[in-house]
Amino acid sequence: MLPKTVTIVEVGPRDGLQNEPGVVPTAVKIALIDKLATAGLTMIEATAFVSPKWVPQMADNTAVLEGITRRPGVTYPVLTPNLKGFEAALAAGATEVAVFAAASESFSQRNINCSIAESLERFRPVVDAAAAAGVSVRGYVSCVVGCPYEGAIAPAQVARVAAELMVMGCREVSLGDTIGVGTPLSISRMIEAVAKFVPLSRLAGHYHDTYGMAIANINASLQLGVATFDASVGGLGGCPYAKGASGNVATEDVVYLLNGLGLACGVDLNLLVDAGAFIAGHLGRQSGSKVARALLAGRS
Amino acid sequence: MLPKTVTIVEVGPRDGLQNEPGVVPTAVKIALIDKLATAGLTMIEATAFVSPKWVPQMADNTAVLEGITRRPGVTYPVLTPNLKGFEAALAAGATEVAVFAAASESFSQRNINCSIAESLERFRPVVDAAAAAGVSVRGYVSCVVGCPYEGAIAPAQVARVAAELMVMGCREVSLGDTIGVGTPLSISRMIEAVAKFVPLSRLAGHYHDTYGMAIANINASLQLGVATFDASVGGLGGCPYAKGASGNVATEDVVYLLNGLGLACGVDLNLLVDAGAFIAGHLGRQSGSKVARALLAGRS
Repeated sequence: MLPKTVTIVEVGPRDGLQNEPGVVPTAVKIALIDKLATAGLTMIEATAFVSPKWVPQMADNTAVLEGITRRPGVTYPVLTPNLKGFEAALAAGATEVAVFAAASESFSQRNINCSIAESLERFRPVVDAAAAAGVSVRGYVSCVVGCPYEGAIAPAQVARVAAELMVMGCREVSLGDTIGVGTPLSISRMIEAVAKFVPLSRLAGHYHDTYGMAIANINASLQLGVATFDASVGGLGGCPYAKGASGNVATEDVVYLLNGLGLACGVDLNLLVDAGAFIAGHLGRQSGSKVARALLAGRS
Repeated sequence: MLPKTVTIVEVGPRDGLQNEPGVVPTAVKIALIDKLATAGLTMIEATAFVSPKWVPQMADNTAVLEGITRRPGVTYPVLTPNLKGFEAALAAGATEVAVFAAASESFSQRNINCSIAESLERFRPVVDAAAAAGVSVRGYVSCVVGCPYEGAIAPAQVARVAAELMVMGCREVSLGDTIGVGTPLSISRMIEAVAKFVPLSRLAGHYHDTYGMAIANINASLQLGVATFDASVGGLGGCPYAKGASGNVATEDVVYLLNGLGLACGVDLNLLVDAGAFIAGHLGRQSGSKVARALLAGRS
């Protein structure tokens, strides 16, 4: 069942920087994205078209999207929670957009102020407009194993939301263990439940490393045939639900795992470590990637 | 093949503190060991009977072994590299000792100044004396996947050294990925090679988290039937071969994994986090366990 090649969706410039304290200069974001593309990543979530009032870190979305050097074969998806955001993204040249749903009612209410059903209705015009414009859509489902407000989430509930996003017209659904509580057992059960409705080739694992389980969860998902994983260079982003804890799994660690398993992902680990060191330097913090720290220690 | 119960060998007080900068007061070591036993750990490597000239951190070995409150059902192994160390350990009341071999010739030469064969000959009188005294012996094999000096190590070489230790009379062999370079594929191949000669019930996985792979490697080993794992509370110890990098896998993270898989290990995670916070406070550093950081963040 192990896939031969694996796609990494780099989410550091958006999901990562959105959750880092402070605002990163536009030129730094552009340089980061270009370095990530040079390292061989082919999917780089670049920014979000959301209200700058709520997410000031992404206020320069158009400038970022227009400033990057678009490499052939690289897609730069952007988050667009509503039609207004989608139209701005389209005007800025986006060719793939993403919508963000939850598998937990409580999380949906607290995070985007509406029920799961209402959020899906809100995404429908985005997906329709994207189809009309020839733009593909990625669907996120958050809290696929646990929710910070209501605890464990039933795999069937995740499957239902994922299936609705696919039926609506999403190209792929990214399954997010938003608080990183999953282990290989709960992650595998969740994947198996979702795979009854959505082909494995259309699923991505988006695992947080809050409890240090992300690499084991990716390995378990690979064994089931999942071939796409979201990751954030240097583990950018942290965890909004536990101050000081880890968030997104580090891209460097995922690439190290895949190299060790002999699975091709097309990413040059050394160039990736360079990109991570570049942004960690700008943020004035150590990399959240154990692989990056070990390799950088070896260089010095 | 998954075991129903798992034994964790806590190595923080010895392998961990030996590799931390500075010397920890004897009373703190004793309190740490007692807290670890209270948390439910049944195997706690307490100290080493080695030359205080080479390892000043363990100079208080007898005081530690005599100062702890021995709980029924808990074993406190100590490292004894030679007969002199063994005799001192026996006098201090040790009931299990450990010897430390390598699967890499270069590592053996640089670490203990002799060939693998010479090191095994040096251990033989220790194992014989232990048998005569009714003391069990644990054998370590280091560099089971890779060596800092010669790179990849052949699984057959690991199997040979592990088999020799068992034939000599060791109760169990702990397979150490000393520089943490293994991934589930290389670790599984190594385990399979060793298991041709040594029963799985006599093997322990000792994985370092230098490249963030330890939890995935433990999970892969569990799938093969390995039921004993070494770990260090709070990830104590770091990596002597890469400054600033991680070393021993954190016990808290291992317990979290086992809890998630529904495998009993008898350890109370909250009491374990308390023990880790206690020693991290004394060392003036953050815990190296992601689970501990997330749980401590949730408490505050």
